[in-house]
Amino acid sequence: MASSASAQWQDPLLARRVRGMESSVIRDLLALTARPNVISLAGGLPDAAALPAAWLRECADQLLRQEGPVVLQYSTTEGDPLLRALIAQWESDWCGHHVSADDVLVTSGSQQALDLLAKVLVDPGDVVVTTDPAYLGALQAMHLFEPKLVGIGEDVDGMRVDLLAEALSGGLRPKLVYLTPTFANPSGSMMPFGRRKELAALADQYGFVILEDDAYRQLYFTDPPPAPIASLSERVVRLGSFSKVLGPGLRVGWVVAPPALRDALIRAKQATDLHTSTFTQRLLHAAAKDAPRLAEHLGRTRVMYAERATALTEALRAGFGDRIELATPQGGMFCWVTFRDGPGLAGIRPDALLATALKRNVAFVPGGAFAVDRISPLASTARGARMCFATSPPELLREAVERLVLASGDLR
Amino acid sequence: MASSASAQWQDPLLARRVRGMESSVIRDLLALTARPNVISLAGGLPDAAALPAAWLRECADQLLRQEGPVVLQYSTTEGDPLLRALIAQWESDWCGHHVSADDVLVTSGSQQALDLLAKVLVDPGDVVVTTDPAYLGALQAMHLFEPKLVGIGEDVDGMRVDLLAEALSGGLRPKLVYLTPTFANPSGSMMPFGRRKELAALADQYGFVILEDDAYRQLYFTDPPPAPIASLSERVVRLGSFSKVLGPGLRVGWVVAPPALRDALIRAKQATDLHTSTFTQRLLHAAAKDAPRLAEHLGRTRVMYAERATALTEALRAGFGDRIELATPQGGMFCWVTFRDGPGLAGIRPDALLATALKRNVAFVPGGAFAVDRISPLASTARGARMCFATSPPELLREAVERLVLASGDLR
Repeated sequence: MASSASAQWQDPLLARRVRGMESSVIRDLLALTARPNVISLAGGLPDAAALPAAWLRECADQLLRQEGPVVLQYSTTEGDPLLRALIAQWESDWCGHHVSADDVLVTSGSQQALDLLAKVLVDPGDVVVTTDPAYLGALQAMHLFEPKLVGIGEDVDGMRVDLLAEALSGGLRPKLVYLTPTFANPSGSMMPFGRRKELAALADQYGFVILEDDAYRQLYFTDPPPAPIASLSERVVRLGSFSKVLGPGLRVGWVVAPPALRDALIRAKQATDLHTSTFTQRLLHAAAKDAPRLAEHLGRTRVMYAERATALTEALRAGFGDRIELATPQGGMFCWVTFRDGPGLAGIRPDALLATALKRNVAFVPGGAFAVDRISPLASTARGARMCFATSPPELLREAVERLVLASGDLR
Repeated sequence: MASSASAQWQDPLLARRVRGMESSVIRDLLALTARPNVISLAGGLPDAAALPAAWLRECADQLLRQEGPVVLQYSTTEGDPLLRALIAQWESDWCGHHVSADDVLVTSGSQQALDLLAKVLVDPGDVVVTTDPAYLGALQAMHLFEPKLVGIGEDVDGMRVDLLAEALSGGLRPKLVYLTPTFANPSGSMMPFGRRKELAALADQYGFVILEDDAYRQLYFTDPPPAPIASLSERVVRLGSFSKVLGPGLRVGWVVAPPALRDALIRAKQATDLHTSTFTQRLLHAAAKDAPRLAEHLGRTRVMYAERATALTEALRAGFGDRIELATPQGGMFCWVTFRDGPGLAGIRPDALLATALKRNVAFVPGGAFAVDRISPLASTARGARMCFATSPPELLREAVERLVLASGDLR
């Protein structure tokens, strides 16, 4: 395009909902960390070694031989019936009640489920509560539909449901409460069963809808996580994903929603992308239906990530001592480091540390990037940092921490 | 889910934009036509025989062997660089000016391009002009962002640009004008170069943006279509798709947009589904980069569809004589039948005909389904019918018309 054209495309042309949209901090950051020598704890990628290329090659070959062109053809908006049945079985096992294939809508990654839910549920000004810090993709999906976002702080057990209860009795009336209760992104927190019950009871009492984003459920290290919040209330919509299990690049996730909401979701999905790729749905079904092989694959992935989580957290504790607070993750891909401030401690500001860290070729994401209110973030969020242990082997994680310690020295 | 739950999910929970959303006529119709003995001219599917399963199997095998897990990994929101470069080359050839890979955003089918464009450009109440009849998916994508839709009638040369010019001088001020100028869905019309120039000139004069949906461009029967409208004005956004070329079930399309708009589109896409499947993008690139094989494949598809278009239109003319008007399609997948009304003719109402046709096991879509205003549709749209010749071989198309003739007899 001729550069003269760009002058015509001024902001007034853009819809109100995107006019103030800021460029993604994480996108900008990831661009920086793409340099070769950088050890990045900033991403949220599974290790390529954990993605089963050979297995999926076998599946693709067999699928295209046996099924032929039908897997390249248009298919239904709801999703492939075989894949929906498989997901329904998983969800039934997790939730402890029967979930039927009809309850499942296949989406183009669980990110699309967030977009569809926002599209179908959020009017401008509606109150949406999330944890603070929150998954940035959820904040972005919601933002486009102009809700009033309210962040509730977290501790190691996830969303401070006591603070939510306080806000509710103070008059807060959310339409939706969004959270990742299991091995959260970004905080790594894990909400115990008792707190899940308290949250479910609040949903029933105040009539809000819980969006339970459970993309990391299968990545536990030792013990399976507690039953989903959906097992405790009917006011819960569940979001799931194959991204952390078999491959994010296939872009297949799902949403489990009650009938009245599901019909609206299906119609919104039809208008959004007609349906998710027939081929990638059938490919994932072909792999995931082999339960023993999937269990073996997940078992290997869990061991690999558990080792890495240990390596990173031990190195951080050894390197930073009482200057940080850090819980050991029980699953997922992230740990959350809080830089302490107090008598005798030169409190480290995560964004200042990132600047010196990048010079030492190591990267992470300062907590402020995940704040619900980026202008005046919660102190607990602003003093934190997300570090991903999933992408690098233990020796690189230890090297990364050595560089971080040097970078913190550069701050003085 | 327990059925008691559904009572909780009443309309007030849904966002305003979806509360009045009607169920899709075509979805309901396609459900009817899924019965075995029905010959369906109602769908918009490529023939499965035209989808190159064996070729894509080779590509998938080679891709996963050579590239391994990287094609299963997260990738950039903009799309795969190799695929963007290939699309940019195609667009440069068609438009006659340089289109760079940076100008291209890969989308999850061109349906997603429509969703993103509506998201980024349409404020409630903005005027959006489309042809009438229009591609239903475009109407659905737009509807969710609450524009004022204005339909402009068509003739065999596509949108009546003279009528648009009249409306503009009468004060109409659209933000967007959407059309499929080449082998339109649903009307099959093809806008000649002269009319494209008139439309481009209006865009420059009145400052609206043209959304040029060109998904059928490569399906011409004898002569390649005229240059895109984008070759005539800088105020044009182009939409393309691999669906009609290599396989709709892969869900890969694209949008070519000027820089200022593209940045907003990329951010909206990130919030909508992060990115389109890495694997299906690389798979399509692996196939489409083999230009001679693609040309051979497209050549076969064109011959197949041309034969079918001839078979259907000849049978319709023989069976219905002067009771219909019908232009011979020059490409694409659809023809548009207008049932004439006048002295000595018992005018056939398409929706009445559909009812008797279904009893005779043949289906098509009455024009009213594609009307911009479904309550009081344009007469030219309401008297029409879309018939798809792409899915069935000539002998079945002739059988379908015999049944339609009998069904029209049942109306008396």
